[in-house]
Amino acid sequence: MNVGGQHFRTIWLNPANEQVVQLIDQRFLPRRFVIEEVNTVEQMATAIREMHVRGAGLIGASAGYGMYLATIEAAGSGSFDQHVANAAAKLKATRPTAVNLTWAIERQLTSIASEPDWHKTAQEKIDLALRTARQIAEQDVEHCRMIGQHGLNLIEQVAGTKNGKPVNVLTHCNAGWLAFVDYGSALAPVYAAHDHGLPVHVWVDETRPRSQGSKLTAWELGQHGVPHTIIADSAGGHLMQRGEVDLVIVGSDRTTCTGDVANKIGTYLKALAAQDNKIPFYVALPSSSFDWTIRDGSDIPIEERGSEELKRADGWRDGQMLDVSVAPEGSPAANYGFDVTPRRLVTGLITERGVCRADEKSILELFPEHAS
Amino acid sequence: MNVGGQHFRTIWLNPANEQVVQLIDQRFLPRRFVIEEVNTVEQMATAIREMHVRGAGLIGASAGYGMYLATIEAAGSGSFDQHVANAAAKLKATRPTAVNLTWAIERQLTSIASEPDWHKTAQEKIDLALRTARQIAEQDVEHCRMIGQHGLNLIEQVAGTKNGKPVNVLTHCNAGWLAFVDYGSALAPVYAAHDHGLPVHVWVDETRPRSQGSKLTAWELGQHGVPHTIIADSAGGHLMQRGEVDLVIVGSDRTTCTGDVANKIGTYLKALAAQDNKIPFYVALPSSSFDWTIRDGSDIPIEERGSEELKRADGWRDGQMLDVSVAPEGSPAANYGFDVTPRRLVTGLITERGVCRADEKSILELFPEHAS
Repeated sequence: MNVGGQHFRTIWLNPANEQVVQLIDQRFLPRRFVIEEVNTVEQMATAIREMHVRGAGLIGASAGYGMYLATIEAAGSGSFDQHVANAAAKLKATRPTAVNLTWAIERQLTSIASEPDWHKTAQEKIDLALRTARQIAEQDVEHCRMIGQHGLNLIEQVAGTKNGKPVNVLTHCNAGWLAFVDYGSALAPVYAAHDHGLPVHVWVDETRPRSQGSKLTAWELGQHGVPHTIIADSAGGHLMQRGEVDLVIVGSDRTTCTGDVANKIGTYLKALAAQDNKIPFYVALPSSSFDWTIRDGSDIPIEERGSEELKRADGWRDGQMLDVSVAPEGSPAANYGFDVTPRRLVTGLITERGVCRADEKSILELFPEHAS
Repeated sequence: MNVGGQHFRTIWLNPANEQVVQLIDQRFLPRRFVIEEVNTVEQMATAIREMHVRGAGLIGASAGYGMYLATIEAAGSGSFDQHVANAAAKLKATRPTAVNLTWAIERQLTSIASEPDWHKTAQEKIDLALRTARQIAEQDVEHCRMIGQHGLNLIEQVAGTKNGKPVNVLTHCNAGWLAFVDYGSALAPVYAAHDHGLPVHVWVDETRPRSQGSKLTAWELGQHGVPHTIIADSAGGHLMQRGEVDLVIVGSDRTTCTGDVANKIGTYLKALAAQDNKIPFYVALPSSSFDWTIRDGSDIPIEERGSEELKRADGWRDGQMLDVSVAPEGSPAANYGFDVTPRRLVTGLITERGVCRADEKSILELFPEHAS
C-alpha cells in the first residue's frame, strides 16, 4: 500500500543482497518510517517478540523469512537439521496466540524436508526455503487482495442503504496492510471500497495498551486517504447505540475450525455491542489464520505481556520518542493480549474464498480439504 | 479517606479563612498531592471544567461551595441577585452530563431565596449559602457511607461462596472517595468490606483517555491498602469469561428515574459482558445523582471533550509531568465522555437507602417523595 504516495510492502528481501530481509520497524510509526535489516534468526525472533513486526499475516511471513535465514545459518553450522529445528523452536516461542507463526514454520519444515530428494544439499534446502518464504508472502498478498474483493461486496450492500452517506466501519487494533504483507484483512475491504469510489469512514479504536489503532491503523488509512476518526476503546458501544456504526470488521490472530475468534483484547466487547445493536460483526482472515486442530476457543493460548505496557504510554514529544508513567509505581497491572469472541457473536468470516458463517459446516464448505 | 495514613476529604473550607475553599487538585495524582485554594466562582468553574475536581458527588459539592463564593462576590457587586444568577449559569455550563451539578446549584438557589424572609441581608444570604454548601458536602459523606454499608452486604454474600478466596470486583473510571467528598460510591462497599476484614481485590479499568482508573482509583485503593490490579479498558470481558470477576460495581453521573445509567464511556460494554457471563452488575449512587425529570437514558446529554485528550497521553517522566503524542497529527479523534447503560443490564442500584432494582417502581419505593 501507499507510504507518501510510494508503494510498499511490510517485508521483502534486500534487492542488493538476498540473504538479508528488510522490514518496516513499526515501533516508530506514525512519526518515523524506519526500515530494519534482519540478518539472523535471532534478530527475526526479536523483531517478532518485541513487535517490530506484528499482525497475523506479517508474523507468518516474517517467520517464513526467518526460517529461510535459518537455512543459511544452518549451512555454516555443524548440524544443518539441528540448527533448523532450534531456529523453528525459537521462532515459535515468540508469540503464543498467533497461529500464522506455527503455520508458516511448519510449512517451511515440510518444504525443507520435502520429497523427491531427502538428501538435498544445503544450497538446495536454502533455495527451497527461499522459494517457500516468497510463496508464503505472495500467498498472503493474494489472499488479502481476495478478502478485499469479497468484503467489498458487503460494504457495497450497506452503501446501497445509505443514500450516498459514508458507510461507517468500526475496527479494533490493526488488521490493515501493516499486519500482513499488503492489503490487510479487516481493512482490505475498506481499501477496496475506497478505491472503488464508495464513501467509507472508519472508526479506529485506539487499542490500548500498545495503541496499534491510533499509531498504525490511523496512519495507514491516512496515507491512503481514507476518512477515519480515532476513538477510545470504550467508545464503540456508545457509537453503535447512536446508529453511527454500520458494520464492524476485525481481524483474527487465530480462529478455530468451529468459528471462535481470538483477536486483540477487547474484540469480544465490540462483538457484544454489535449484537446488542443488531450491527453486523465480521471477521476477516486468510485461511492461514485458522487453527484446524482446536474446536473450542477457550483452548486458544492467550498471550500475557509485561505490565509496563499498561503502566506507561509511549509517544512523541519535540521530535523524540518517550514513554511516560501513567499509573502509581506500586500498583500491579495485568496485560492480556487477546480475547476470544465466541462464534455465536460473529455474523460472518471473510476469507480469500468468500464469506461464510462462523460455524464448522460453513467453514468446511469453503475449505473442504480440511474436513477429516 | 487516607492519604499517607492521614485522613482527608476532597474539598473543605480553609480553617484559617472560611471565605476560601480548598480542594485536592486531582490532575497531579498519583505523583503529586496538590491542594488548590479557590477564591472565586471563576476559579471554581475552571476547577470543575478542567477537571481539577471530577466525579458525581464532588462536582455537586464543588458547585455548592462555588455558589457560596458567588454570594460573597455578589455582596460586593451592584446587583446581588443578578450576580448569583450569572454564577449559577456559569457553573451549570461546566459539565453537561453530571446531574449533581444542577442539583447542587438549584438547591443553593432555593436556599438563598428561601422563606421566611424574602428580604434577607446579603450577609444572611451568605450565611445560608455557607450552611447549604456544608449540608451538601456532609450529606454526600453520609450517603456514601450508607452506600458502603448496603454494598457491604452484597460483597459479604459473594464472599460466603468463595471459600476464603478474595472477592473480585471490577470497576470502571473512578467512583471512589476522590469522586465524592469521602468514601465514594462504587468503592464505598469495597472499603467497607476491606475494613470489615473481608478479602477483596479490585480490577481497575485504566479508563482512557484521562486514565482516572490508573491514576486515581489505583492510587486511592493503594493508599487504603486494598489489593488491586490495573487492566486495559478492553480486558474486562476476557476476565469475566475466565471467571475472574465476581461482581461489577460502577458509579453514575446521572441515572434516570426509570433506571437508565449514564456513566463514564465504556460502562455499557462492561454491562454487556457482565450479562453475557451472568455476573451481577451494580451501580452505586447517592440519590443526588438521580434525574427525576428524564425517563429515557437516550435523552441524557453526553459531554464531548477535546480530541487532544485522546491524541495525547499525560504522564510522568523524571519527576516531571509531560504529555506525549500517541496518534498521527493529521488524524481526527472523537472523545465522548459518557455512555448510557440501559436498565435491562443493571442488576441493582446501591443507594443510601438500600439496594433496589433498576426500574421506576423499585426506585420510587425507596424514594417515594419523588413519585408525582
